[in-house]
Amino acid sequence: MSEMLAPGSTIGILGGGQLGRMLSVAAARLGFKTCIFEPAGDCPASHVANFHLQAAYDDEAALKRFADSVDVITYEFENIPTSALDLLESLTPIRPNRRTLAVSQDRLTEKAFLNGLGLQTAPFAAVDDEFDLAEALTEIGAPAILKTRRFGYDGKGQARIKSAQDAPQALADMAGNAAILEGFVTFTHEISVIGARGLNGDVACFDPGENVHVDGILHTTTLPATLTSSQQMDAVLLTAKILNALDYVGVMGVELFVTAKGLVVNEIAPRVHNSGHWTQNGCAIDQFEQHIRAVAGWPLGDGQRHSNVEMLNLIGDDVDRIPELAKDGKVAIHLYGKAQAKKGRKMGHVNRILGPA
Amino acid sequence: MSEMLAPGSTIGILGGGQLGRMLSVAAARLGFKTCIFEPAGDCPASHVANFHLQAAYDDEAALKRFADSVDVITYEFENIPTSALDLLESLTPIRPNRRTLAVSQDRLTEKAFLNGLGLQTAPFAAVDDEFDLAEALTEIGAPAILKTRRFGYDGKGQARIKSAQDAPQALADMAGNAAILEGFVTFTHEISVIGARGLNGDVACFDPGENVHVDGILHTTTLPATLTSSQQMDAVLLTAKILNALDYVGVMGVELFVTAKGLVVNEIAPRVHNSGHWTQNGCAIDQFEQHIRAVAGWPLGDGQRHSNVEMLNLIGDDVDRIPELAKDGKVAIHLYGKAQAKKGRKMGHVNRILGPA
Repeated sequence: MSEMLAPGSTIGILGGGQLGRMLSVAAARLGFKTCIFEPAGDCPASHVANFHLQAAYDDEAALKRFADSVDVITYEFENIPTSALDLLESLTPIRPNRRTLAVSQDRLTEKAFLNGLGLQTAPFAAVDDEFDLAEALTEIGAPAILKTRRFGYDGKGQARIKSAQDAPQALADMAGNAAILEGFVTFTHEISVIGARGLNGDVACFDPGENVHVDGILHTTTLPATLTSSQQMDAVLLTAKILNALDYVGVMGVELFVTAKGLVVNEIAPRVHNSGHWTQNGCAIDQFEQHIRAVAGWPLGDGQRHSNVEMLNLIGDDVDRIPELAKDGKVAIHLYGKAQAKKGRKMGHVNRILGPA
Repeated sequence: MSEMLAPGSTIGILGGGQLGRMLSVAAARLGFKTCIFEPAGDCPASHVANFHLQAAYDDEAALKRFADSVDVITYEFENIPTSALDLLESLTPIRPNRRTLAVSQDRLTEKAFLNGLGLQTAPFAAVDDEFDLAEALTEIGAPAILKTRRFGYDGKGQARIKSAQDAPQALADMAGNAAILEGFVTFTHEISVIGARGLNGDVACFDPGENVHVDGILHTTTLPATLTSSQQMDAVLLTAKILNALDYVGVMGVELFVTAKGLVVNEIAPRVHNSGHWTQNGCAIDQFEQHIRAVAGWPLGDGQRHSNVEMLNLIGDDVDRIPELAKDGKVAIHLYGKAQAKKGRKMGHVNRILGPA
């Protein structure tokens, strides 16, 4: 373990939202210092990090200062401008690596990569204009979803196409951005695997959780998921396949549809993932610490679950339920320190312990 | 729950060591901001707190600024100068209360208080000079321990008296401070109860842990402790008695000797306690969050344990064992961010999950 980063070293985190916040706390637990790079002031991660470098992603001097002041760089979101990454990478290691970002920043590249590994995805086609869209609709059929290839999350940048007559509006919704048409997949439920790969190539996966979305945003993740043991094995093996193919270092979220024809990959996220928050109260080493361990070259936790857990997201006004939720001794509360509870904003989550695993 | 402090409020913490650090993280988890008052720079708590007010305890302007900038004040150690408390209390509520500090800051007062509640302690006598000491030794007998009445912890300010001839040196070791002679208690083992009392008077205790000390410093705490169910009940009830008698708000550590004649109180600590660190990986709501919940007027966790745990302190060079310890997936690591591993210095701890409770 000669590459094991020593306690007292500083981990740089691009992005200062709730994921950066929980990564910072995990890093502190292992004795690391953290420096957050985030343009916004009073961001969730800044409350618990050692340093907050408040600057824009095109501020080269700030990026240099950041890279020079940290021992390794990681990130809490995948849409970091390429120019910033180029500069940072020339100075300090970035984990997970650039190839992963190139793959996952673009829905088209991501799906092509997954198919290349022999994994199933929804049917898809690139859509740059109305001619592409018409052709794609003929091939894939409606209903389908048009999505921007880049910068989409939590249902943003997406338009449903129920029939061909929705096509013009859907295309207009893309606002000129390159898009991808995705066909629907008939599935019984969605699960996700939070996988991790260490600097030495070791892979460890947490048990799959079962996800329920409401209005395009994750609502609950429940452990254990409804899976046969062979489905569970498939889920873990395909996650390992993705991690190994990318020479990945860190935690990755892999969303999977469970279908009659096997598991279909919905999307991958090269970072800690909302559907892995349950690990905070279900495992000795949670996804945040697992990610920090990986990027710091430490041995990974084994992902073993001591408790069954239901994670419930608190979106917008849901946070008003805290006084009630706090009365339940089996409910662990995790708030993100955001001042205003706007509609659709992730304010926190709770993990309810259901019993021993 | 009208007195429930709203997320976004600021909790002031006197003292910036590892207990303040872990309290800060727990407060952040509930959406609170934290401000640490601590004379030392780069203290463990400052790494994860929103604000660090670095000033001395006799700096009245700084104390005022601190009290004015926070919604409630708590502390991680009991030896806060009285003058500072007087000033702070006139501006902002301090929890746990002053009476508790008056009782626990002085070993003599504490033992008298406990006896007053009908609880057993070691035999003791006040020692101000050689005449007191001679009389006390006649009454209590040797071997015995002479301790300063105030400001002792982790075996500091203590002198063993094996026979009367050790008396002069022991008294000299007190350096003129008022002292107390304590007789030895014959016990099979030591346990501690981490109890909590909420603002509304609710009491919740974590299960007792069994402590092993080495060189006067806590070495391990193991759950479950070796106790009959009636001993376990006694331990919890006497802890509740102490909490209620003090109109206590917060978490308290109660160290108990298990003897043939029942439980004997060794000492009480009006704060989160090293022997409660196991709760971080054994309970949905740990002692740090429990303390924050209490001082913030939130409902308490129920103290239920989901896993059996062994907590091991990392003292001084023990921290060099981290690479080895990190390989065990059942071991959760908690480091305090201290730069130098001095002899006897608490650098961190690990919680090993032993299995379901």
